Order: sequence, then structure tokens, then C-alpha cells
Amino acid sequence: MDNPSLTNISELGEFGLIDRLTKDIKPVQPSTVMGVGDDAAVLKTGGRNYTLVSNDLLLEGVHFDMTYTPLKHLGYKAAAVNLSDIAAMNGTPRQIVVGIGVSSKYTLEALEELYRGIKKACEVYHVDFVGGDTTSSLSGLFISVTVIGDADKEKVTYRKGAKPGDLLCVSGDLGGAYMGLLTLEKEKRAFQANPSMQPELQGKDYILQRQLKPEPRLDIVEALKKQKILPTAMIDISDGLASEALHISKESGVGVAIYENKIPIDQETYRTAEEFQIIPSVAALNGGEDYELLFTISQSDYEKILKIPQVSVIGYITDISEGNRLISNDNTVIELSAQGWDAFRKH
Amino acid sequence: MDNPSLTNISELGEFGLIDRLTKDIKPVQPSTVMGVGDDAAVLKTGGRNYTLVSNDLLLEGVHFDMTYTPLKHLGYKAAAVNLSDIAAMNGTPRQIVVGIGVSSKYTLEALEELYRGIKKACEVYHVDFVGGDTTSSLSGLFISVTVIGDADKEKVTYRKGAKPGDLLCVSGDLGGAYMGLLTLEKEKRAFQANPSMQPELQGKDYILQRQLKPEPRLDIVEALKKQKILPTAMIDISDGLASEALHISKESGVGVAIYENKIPIDQETYRTAEEFQIIPSVAALNGGEDYELLFTISQSDYEKILKIPQVSVIGYITDISEGNRLISNDNTVIELSAQGWDAFRKH
Repeated sequence: MDNPSLTNISELGEFGLIDRLTKDIKPVQPSTVMGVGDDAAVLKTGGRNYTLVSNDLLLEGVHFDMTYTPLKHLGYKAAAVNLSDIAAMNGTPRQIVVGIGVSSKYTLEALEELYRGIKKACEVYHVDFVGGDTTSSLSGLFISVTVIGDADKEKVTYRKGAKPGDLLCVSGDLGGAYMGLLTLEKEKRAFQANPSMQPELQGKDYILQRQLKPEPRLDIVEALKKQKILPTAMIDISDGLASEALHISKESGVGVAIYENKIPIDQETYRTAEEFQIIPSVAALNGGEDYELLFTISQSDYEKILKIPQVSVIGYITDISEGNRLISNDNTVIELSAQGWDAFRKH
Repeated sequence: MDNPSLTNISELGEFGLIDRLTKDIKPVQPSTVMGVGDDAAVLKTGGRNYTLVSNDLLLEGVHFDMTYTPLKHLGYKAAAVNLSDIAAMNGTPRQIVVGIGVSSKYTLEALEELYRGIKKACEVYHVDFVGGDTTSSLSGLFISVTVIGDADKEKVTYRKGAKPGDLLCVSGDLGGAYMGLLTLEKEKRAFQANPSMQPELQGKDYILQRQLKPEPRLDIVEALKKQKILPTAMIDISDGLASEALHISKESGVGVAIYENKIPIDQETYRTAEEFQIIPSVAALNGGEDYELLFTISQSDYEKILKIPQVSVIGYITDISEGNRLISNDNTVIELSAQGWDAFRKH
């Protein structure tokens, strides 16, 4: 970029860029309930439920590395991360449309493997593959998935809605997908240095699966419904716990307090983080791609949430004036900041 | 590709590839009315209307050339070609979600220009921009647009539904977008040979606009409604008249007969085709990107269709046994074949 009056997009980062590009958008259709700014758009299509729509891109070399990503897993993941956006709205995914741009270096058999993964995710989550576009690209593989789902009008959960006093909860465990990524990157480097070496992936099954084949937590949406808990705010964890907690803070106009020692971390994640000399909670806070659900509930739902074993209460919501805080294991209070994954920044 | 047992995707072509990849897909959701295989998926979301969903990709170097495509026009076109898919279902577009992958060579200002074009199309056609994804790419610009629309349950038009005896109609005129493309490509080559030369684009306004800023024919959908004409089948012309006519033939199980001398061609298109020594009707049959509507109507609607001046009756539907035919200006009958644009084939 030669002209100094122009702005390099990497200066803004992904969220800054999206804010700039979408700030003046004002819906005019009566059927648009919620546009840009949440995990999915919310539409009123005339039925008892609202219709939810979300889109995610996966680009070769940015979101995945073909040297260690099996195509079937990639297809599964492309679908799964989109279904996760519908889960984050407390909804049920129903259909996907898939756009694929692919260079001529890919064979039919490779594309069939990719589609097998997409179809498998559709089968597991009872979602219909209803259309899309397949075209050639100059180089690389480009996947766009749009998911359509629905949710009871009264039960859609947004990023806004968290209130001081609410409890902050998360499903499953965090940091595993990032540790899986670091493990794969390390093996790639080792292989490049010495192609005859065998990969050392024993005891890494869980974190590799977390990275290569994440699952949308639609089971948590079901469990919440069964316990008659309606979260006050919800988001899925694609960019790391810290980044997502800050989204809830910003959209709800509240402060967030997270206890470091309450963050759920799997033993394999913990062990691998130590191998990489990374503090395990830092992997959870900033690692991303876990696709767990982060949500807030009223304190009155505390007894009920204990009945869902896959959910941990990790903190609480405060007035906005208290800021966003991490209460560390030694009781130091640290300001919560997002250093999560951002495709536009260099790490 | 070194392994001879693998299949190069360019051998199959775009439609062959899509058929192979989607052949075993079976919807399970009761809300899926129509999945893969038409201009848009048709969903039953509970209201009085069906919901329509379609996705199109535009990839740099494949669908557009940044050397002569203004970014604002590109944004407008990316939205317009998707709205055209909803028009082809006899529907009304309501919302779009946009996924953009962009390399760091693009500035914020360039992306703002692209978004201005998308927003302009939204404004003109009263469509809401409700979400999407913006991420970095290793190289080039990737645009994925998904459009959501609706149509009266009884009035959705599919590619299937044409019956022997029906009239074949087309809106506007054809071949102009292709002539615009050839003109731009020629100027690009001239500029590359001699950067100081001035472009010769006088008298090419119409065909350049057809290529760079197509409009979805939602006015035709309105006009048909006003005349109380319900097409028996409809498709939009993205890959050329011949290719789209063959889609109607295949999906409806009928034959198509087109009169060469009835194909509407603008004078500027005609003149430019002659300059390029291309038969103007060949540009219309195989050129693509005109985004006009090709549809069939019952003979009983003949008097009514004459009241829509932007529509031409160009042929008729026969029994499948009669094949797909072009009746040429000198009354020779030629078998209709598609040589339209196919991103996977070399031209």
C-alpha cells in the first residue's frame, strides 16, 4: 500500500473492520428482527418460530492447513461451526447451503471426501443440505456455509441480555482445540525437517479431535430446555473465552468477572499446554475454536444448572463500572483482554 | 494429478460435478420443500409464504477481473445476481448475508467501496443486509452472498413444471453482458500492450452496464403478478440462454424449441458482436450473465403476456421426444447445445 491516506485492514482487526463496514446498515424489512451483530440474524418469516441465519467462511491457508487437515474432517467442521452459531441463539439448525470454490488441483475424489464430511455432520444433527454453489478458484479451497435454523420467538438468546448478578456459565472444557492446533503445527514442522520421521500423536486424541472435528453443543441447548433454563445471553466460543466474554459485556452493557480456577480444562489439554510452556488457562482464554457455549443465567437458576454436568459456572456479571476482570488463582484481579484469534492480525 | 485412478474435476464440468456431489442427498426436515437443484431452496418456515434461500460465490480471477471491475459495481453485482435467483423462483428477496475473504493488499477504503455497492443494491431492492463473515484470505477477493426471500406457497416457480404446448418467454435482451466482457477484455489487452493509450469505450455504455452492473428482474416478477400470469417454469439466465433452456428441458422432462429470429438482442450488442465477428444469436445463446428471466407460460396466457413489453416469446415447449431445437433464421433446425460459461472448463 503506497498511499499513506489509505488504511491497512490489518490495523483494524476483524471486529474493528466489521464495525466500520456495517455501522450505517439499517434494516427496512419488517421481517428483520435482528441484523448484523450477533451469532445469527433473526428473521420473522410468519410462523410460530423465528428463523435464524448465519454464515461462516473457511479459507485454505487461513482457517485450515491442507497438510494436516483430512478433507472429511474439514467438511464436518465447516458444517459444525455454523450449526454452533444456531446453538448460540438457543435455536435448532434445519438446513445448510454450501458454497465451495476449488482449484483444479483438487480431484473429484477429494471433493467427494469433503462433501462426505459435510453430509456426515448433516446426518448427525438432522440438518438438510439444500443447495449452494460449486465453482473453480484460481488457487486454494474456499468454503462458505450458511445455516438456517429456528427458535421459539420468546426463547431466542442474544449477546445482549446479561444483567448484573447473573451467573456466567460455559459448556464442556476449553483450550483443547488450540492445543490440538499447536500439536499439529509442531508435527508439521518436524515432518518438514525430516520427512522420514513418524508423527508423535499418542495420547493426543482428545485435543486433535477438538481441533479437527468440533461438535456444536446442541445437546446443551436441549439440556437447558429440559431444565427450563432460559439463558439471559449466549454466544459460542470461536475466538477464545476472553474475546467472547467481552462481546457479552459490550452488547449487554455489563461487566464480566471470571474466576481462573473455575475455567474447565481437560487433563490432556492441561498436560499439552505445559509441554508447550503455556499457562493452561491462557490457552482457554485466548485459544479459540472450542465451539463451546458461553452463557449467562439468572441466579435463581443456580440449582437447576447444577443438574447439567457438562456446564461449569465460571463467574458472574457485574455493573459495567466494575470493568471486565479475571480473578486469578492467587486472587489477583487482572483486566480481561482479548488476545484471541483474529484473521486480520499477525500473531 | 499423478494418480490416474483419480478424476480431474475439469472433466466433469460444473453441472456434472454438482450432480456427482449432491446425488445422494435426501432431506429429512419436514420444513425442506425443495433442496438442491433449482435457483433457490424452498423452505416451509410456518408462515403463509415459503422461504427461499440461495447462495452464489464470486471469486477474483474467475468471476471478475480487478483490472477493470470497479469495486462498487462488483458489490452491486454480487448482491444483484443473488436477488436474481429469488426472482427466478417468482419470489421477493428480503435479506442477504455476505461472507467476504480478502487479502491484506486491499485497504479499508477499497472494502468500503465494495460494501457501498452491496448496500446500494440492498437499498434499490429494499433488501436488508443482516450479517455475514469478513475474514482474511491468502490472496484475492472471495465473495459469498446468501439471499433469503419468500413467495406465496401456490406461486413458487421451479425449473420443473413446463408442459408441451407452453410458450417459452424471456425478459429484456440477451448477449449484452458477454459483449461487455469481450470489450473490457480487449481494452485490457490493448492497455497492457500500450499503457499510454486511451480506452475506446464510446458507444458501449449499455453492454458495459450489462456486464458490470446487472439488475435482477424483480420488475418482471411484479409485472407477471399484475397480469395474473403464473409461469409454469422459470430460471434466470446466468450461463446463457441455451444452458438455461436445457435446465428447463431436463427438470420438466420436455423438449424446448427456440426461434433464432425471436431472440431479443439490443442494437449495441448486435453491433459489437459483429465487430468481434461473433454471430449475435450465439452471444445470446452461450454468453451468459444477462440475468434475464427465462420462463414458460400456458398458451392461454398469450394475450396477457403481450401486455408486458419487456417480455419476448421466443419459442415453445414440446414433448421430450422432439428433443431441444434451435430453429435458425433460414429455417434450419439445429440441436440446441450448451456451450455457456462453465467455471470448470477451459474456453
